[in-house]
Amino acid sequence: MSVRTDAAYAAELDAADELAPFRAAFVDDEPDMIYLDGNSLGRLPRAAAARAEELVRQQWGGRLIRGWNEGWFDAPERVGAKIAGLIGAAPDEVIVADSTSVNLFKLAVAALRAQEGRSRIVSDTLNFPSDLYILQGVIELLGGRHTLELVPSADGIYGPAEAIVARLDSDVALLTLSHTTFKSGYTYDMAALSAAARAAGVFTLWDLSHSVGSVPVDLTAAGADLAVGCCYKYLNGGPGAPAFIYVRRELQERLINPIAGWMGQRDLFAFELTYRRAPGIRGFLSGTPSVVSLSLIEPGVDLLLEAGMARLRAKSERQSEYLIGLWEQLLAPLGFTLNSPREARWRGSHISLGHPQALGIDLALIRELGVLPDFRAPDNLRLGIAPIYTSYTDIHTAVLRLARSVTEGRYTKYMAEAPTVT
Amino acid sequence: MSVRTDAAYAAELDAADELAPFRAAFVDDEPDMIYLDGNSLGRLPRAAAARAEELVRQQWGGRLIRGWNEGWFDAPERVGAKIAGLIGAAPDEVIVADSTSVNLFKLAVAALRAQEGRSRIVSDTLNFPSDLYILQGVIELLGGRHTLELVPSADGIYGPAEAIVARLDSDVALLTLSHTTFKSGYTYDMAALSAAARAAGVFTLWDLSHSVGSVPVDLTAAGADLAVGCCYKYLNGGPGAPAFIYVRRELQERLINPIAGWMGQRDLFAFELTYRRAPGIRGFLSGTPSVVSLSLIEPGVDLLLEAGMARLRAKSERQSEYLIGLWEQLLAPLGFTLNSPREARWRGSHISLGHPQALGIDLALIRELGVLPDFRAPDNLRLGIAPIYTSYTDIHTAVLRLARSVTEGRYTKYMAEAPTVT
Repeated sequence: MSVRTDAAYAAELDAADELAPFRAAFVDDEPDMIYLDGNSLGRLPRAAAARAEELVRQQWGGRLIRGWNEGWFDAPERVGAKIAGLIGAAPDEVIVADSTSVNLFKLAVAALRAQEGRSRIVSDTLNFPSDLYILQGVIELLGGRHTLELVPSADGIYGPAEAIVARLDSDVALLTLSHTTFKSGYTYDMAALSAAARAAGVFTLWDLSHSVGSVPVDLTAAGADLAVGCCYKYLNGGPGAPAFIYVRRELQERLINPIAGWMGQRDLFAFELTYRRAPGIRGFLSGTPSVVSLSLIEPGVDLLLEAGMARLRAKSERQSEYLIGLWEQLLAPLGFTLNSPREARWRGSHISLGHPQALGIDLALIRELGVLPDFRAPDNLRLGIAPIYTSYTDIHTAVLRLARSVTEGRYTKYMAEAPTVT
Repeated sequence: MSVRTDAAYAAELDAADELAPFRAAFVDDEPDMIYLDGNSLGRLPRAAAARAEELVRQQWGGRLIRGWNEGWFDAPERVGAKIAGLIGAAPDEVIVADSTSVNLFKLAVAALRAQEGRSRIVSDTLNFPSDLYILQGVIELLGGRHTLELVPSADGIYGPAEAIVARLDSDVALLTLSHTTFKSGYTYDMAALSAAARAAGVFTLWDLSHSVGSVPVDLTAAGADLAVGCCYKYLNGGPGAPAFIYVRRELQERLINPIAGWMGQRDLFAFELTYRRAPGIRGFLSGTPSVVSLSLIEPGVDLLLEAGMARLRAKSERQSEYLIGLWEQLLAPLGFTLNSPREARWRGSHISLGHPQALGIDLALIRELGVLPDFRAPDNLRLGIAPIYTSYTDIHTAVLRLARSVTEGRYTKYMAEAPTVT
């Protein structure tokens, strides 16, 4: 496959893109800065800027405590129900709460305690490291009765799906994976793995952080048990936005949230001295939510629902193929390697490129060349395509600047610096 | 003691109040609505409205991922260090994270696990119920090896300090109390209880939610071990603002946060597969903080630091005495009882008044009479004095309206409604 490498072709693709008008729904203060880090922090929807003003100035400032009964109490369920529409869940199976880490902790503890007699947790070496940290902490907390098995990826790019399935037996309590892995973007066949897990009586717990909003997810069709995900990447919910929890309805009463807080109590205002868990998904709430941050999630989700996951995925695939086509012709000759799966069906919406000088290239791009990618040690550049606002011209321009970072030797003066950009 | 009940006297007191100018630092859209619920949700500082605009529109919208290195990563420590200045802690002993409930969970688990061989937790019946829920969940999680003893308050107003001290022995792992209790406002002598606990080898874990920002707290002088607190009451941090954690420096390496997330990892960008805890107070972080909500805490804390806790407490005491004086003359004859300690030294900054028709009175105040107090079932009205913005005229006006709610029979038509206001 050989794509045209001229700018006019990128402009043609943009002109034919039915999702292109969504770009105007996002703030862009530096049109010449190509933003390819929506997989770490999505852009600000214009409606979210207005929502912040409304939430803070009008609601907090003007309505004060009355705000709780005018939308704040309902926000975890209301926003959760909208996210459910992006991931193939029922509205009452998803709720917004806490951080991804805290939610993973809650669900992992609940799942392990519901699987008495099973001692193994299976994951892989491509999982987001802090998911593994949470699991390590959970194992210690539960008395060291469980083991965590990290099935290795042979090449650091593809997930070891077959080897994982081979591990699933009656001693495995939990299979937990990143649906789309953070580095290579490899994306598991959720339905196949969930089916294999269920056949062995193993609970599945998916981290959707790098797929939600860019990769179609159908938790119901896949037969997934549990999921968590963050809202600040492709959902465009803002820095550190609260995360979400999915619990399959059949498991909502069986699994017990270990952090038994006020918001998960059956009657918030009875002030009884003994906890009585709220029914359904509300039982997975703990403390009071960060209302301002939580409310800012909604406008971005509304835009994704309007665009539709099928159209977003179709555009993401086309854009990824275009980027890979440009890489083949313009970047591979300069020493860049493709560190993501070559086939679209195994990819999420970010592409990793390897280069021995990746750190210097990353800094040159940010400081001189007007591209914001991100760097993952030791030699990896991640280029995130957020189909709701990334244009083909963005991709074309970024590739030309990546090439210049090498051909013009721009990276050399940055080689000594330590990476600090997420 | 008999205070003057005329409005002119309130105006005189306001004119003599050196903290009165701080009121203008807060948004007030309804000057005729008397806000006495700052103990549930503090007012919006004008600077926080500006901060929200800066955080969302300028930083998220304009700086995008670069914001992490331009203040977001440091925010938990930076804001924590400022809160430390309000509670007698060193800057490196306080950090902002998660919700009060999640933080209480982390510290309770850590404390119990560090007290191997001790099986009892002591608290009281005045503690905030969800603190007890968290403890109940922790006990279940740790295998039911611990018991929770709730020392009863004889009258529902005063904390049973002596009876608590009598329980502290070598089998008690943890003493945890609300410093200022949520309903009556009773405030424990933190130094005395912490000393008694320490003498018995018992860890203390204080919930400062209802005292921080209105009652002087000196964790260091008191010899307190651990504390948590929320930031949305007297700190004026916004609805559901993230909470804070205090861990005495000597315990920071000994106690282990069970929620081992990314932000508590030693090197955020090494992406190692095994958790290595960050040293010091950062080890008590878990997932990514809600940056927008977190950042909005800072302006309110800055105002409190500027006003100074000694001056704030002095005003709070004077205002509370004034309110009680007005109650004696104008409200006691109408059936209102004082459900808070009579002596200032045992009180925080809110006053509870009981009345058999409290729910109807609460709703009449909110809907017809222009007062926002809060209601606590079955018969309690809480009147929160936030000395940084509450005026003597506020208090005088509120008392007159409380009286009218009864003398004009305003409450009758609301008696059937269920309470839903926090």
